[in-house]
Amino acid sequence: MSLLGQSKWNVAVIGATGAVGREMISILEEKEFPVAKLRLFASEKSFGQTLRFRGQELPIEVLAKDHLAPFENIDIALVSVGSRISQEFLPLIAERGTVCIDNSSAWRMDPDVPLIVPEVNASALSGFRQKNIIANPNCSTIQMVQVLKPIHDAYQIKRVVVSTYQSTSGKGQKGIEELSKQTIALLNQKEIKTEAFPHQIAFNCIPHIDQFDEEGYTFEEKKMMLETVKILEDASIRVTATCVRVPVFSCHGESINIETERNASADEIRALLSQTKGLKVVDDPTKNLYPTHILGVNQDDTFVGRIREDHSVENGVHLWVVSDNLRKGAALNAVQIAGALSREFL
Amino acid sequence: MSLLGQSKWNVAVIGATGAVGREMISILEEKEFPVAKLRLFASEKSFGQTLRFRGQELPIEVLAKDHLAPFENIDIALVSVGSRISQEFLPLIAERGTVCIDNSSAWRMDPDVPLIVPEVNASALSGFRQKNIIANPNCSTIQMVQVLKPIHDAYQIKRVVVSTYQSTSGKGQKGIEELSKQTIALLNQKEIKTEAFPHQIAFNCIPHIDQFDEEGYTFEEKKMMLETVKILEDASIRVTATCVRVPVFSCHGESINIETERNASADEIRALLSQTKGLKVVDDPTKNLYPTHILGVNQDDTFVGRIREDHSVENGVHLWVVSDNLRKGAALNAVQIAGALSREFL
Repeated sequence: MSLLGQSKWNVAVIGATGAVGREMISILEEKEFPVAKLRLFASEKSFGQTLRFRGQELPIEVLAKDHLAPFENIDIALVSVGSRISQEFLPLIAERGTVCIDNSSAWRMDPDVPLIVPEVNASALSGFRQKNIIANPNCSTIQMVQVLKPIHDAYQIKRVVVSTYQSTSGKGQKGIEELSKQTIALLNQKEIKTEAFPHQIAFNCIPHIDQFDEEGYTFEEKKMMLETVKILEDASIRVTATCVRVPVFSCHGESINIETERNASADEIRALLSQTKGLKVVDDPTKNLYPTHILGVNQDDTFVGRIREDHSVENGVHLWVVSDNLRKGAALNAVQIAGALSREFL
Repeated sequence: MSLLGQSKWNVAVIGATGAVGREMISILEEKEFPVAKLRLFASEKSFGQTLRFRGQELPIEVLAKDHLAPFENIDIALVSVGSRISQEFLPLIAERGTVCIDNSSAWRMDPDVPLIVPEVNASALSGFRQKNIIANPNCSTIQMVQVLKPIHDAYQIKRVVVSTYQSTSGKGQKGIEELSKQTIALLNQKEIKTEAFPHQIAFNCIPHIDQFDEEGYTFEEKKMMLETVKILEDASIRVTATCVRVPVFSCHGESINIETERNASADEIRALLSQTKGLKVVDDPTKNLYPTHILGVNQDDTFVGRIREDHSVENGVHLWVVSDNLRKGAALNAVQIAGALSREFL
């Protein structure tokens, strides 16, 4: 039985004009999601714009407190706005009956909000009515827990050390444009402007994503560490992360080192991940086959390769993981959560 | 007393026209190295070219078996050629009395060949007369052991997990050009050519540097693992590595996770590294101060930042390290080895 007994849903995309919002609209269409009516919301500065869905130009409505009545007829909102806006508006939208699937970090660690990657912990969705809010994990967390989950179930993970290679689209449309503009400026020996990132990103790497905490970790690193434990529902797993922005437009790469309780050979891990939904193992080094950022672009699957045993520790294994941060890392995962709501839980 | 009792030396640069060779010549001049006469050698295809040194155009001589007599009057050769050529020619040159400082991987693990980073293990230089060959470590090893050494001395390192962010200049002149050409082609929506790297490198990351071994590690990764143990002279240190090429022209970045025997606070590590010759600590996140690849370009120092405690293990610490792979990672270190030979050991 589907959500609210319907076979088609009224859906809203909030933050529709951003990089993730646009991807949400395109995935709703591409996956033939059972949308009855789609409404698009964004901030005032997008007012007057339209975006195409199933051949129609839909107007952008302004997200504002005096314009919340529409949500009384909206079943599901896919939300990709900043944390502050999310904190302010989602309770007001949710109390009107709309189930909010939120891409910001605002609600992720709230114990009354499920934090969901459908292939990993769909069962945790059952608690969604507590606040009518479901959180989409951080992009770099999603692709990591997709590979950690089957390994944890089979071999019990003790510790994870991850270093990331994250694309500029993680900073949205302005991150994509800044890499492009700076690259062109540098190749033409012109001065560059630095706005979206704290330093030049073209032909550079920046070990800084989101704010720093007092201990010197970035919030991005802390998200990977905390969200992973919540999603895998095991506080004994120790995770530590270093997050780095690289001059690539799309996809995030991750060098993941894992220590498990029980011994697993590289072949066993490879076989296990090959059978896992949402993952694609690309791991034949003799043929130069392993994931690269380019390979992951516009793909639904998360790619895994460079699987090898790490003899520097008992039961160690290395993985290299690539996924499209705007799709599985954001928009696709949100749409999949919406899909899972109907199929399994209502 | 200086090498062979001289105050000035006859020096050769072998592989003079490559990216590292050119940097060697420029560093000899810039550092006012006591060169009596400089001779430049390269393969046949560079014959007829000249390179500038101290205002003079020096001819390129061909490195060939019937042209080894010059080495009878050459004190030191700085060598940056492929491993195969190094293996073939260095014994012939060394037996003519020339001390060879070799940048290839050919001799690094030979027990009769010192593997030297002067700030780290200059004392190991004493064995250089065994073969008249001294090896320059791999670029990614050099910058890592510079930070590991003081930490190991003070706190005894147990395990190191490193992931690298390596620039295209590590593949020499052709690596630099391929990133540039592919970037321009992509921005002009033209087809790209892939020659120097196994996949597109522009706006992409490639987790593959050097060949793969049968276990799935690259030789680059194995170099970091084996050379580190040789240089730190402690087989109890366990090192594991993942090496990744990023679309950056200069410098290598490294995300290094260290587990020590004795507890060290981030502040203690920061203070220790601040006092270490050859290192520069740039670590004030609240002011967006940390090393980036751009910061390291053309610098002698290796930069360290993002120093923070890792609570996922007992006595863990994270570091982010950036260094110019053509300078400290290759040419500068080779010239510094030559300098150390005179000052301390002869």
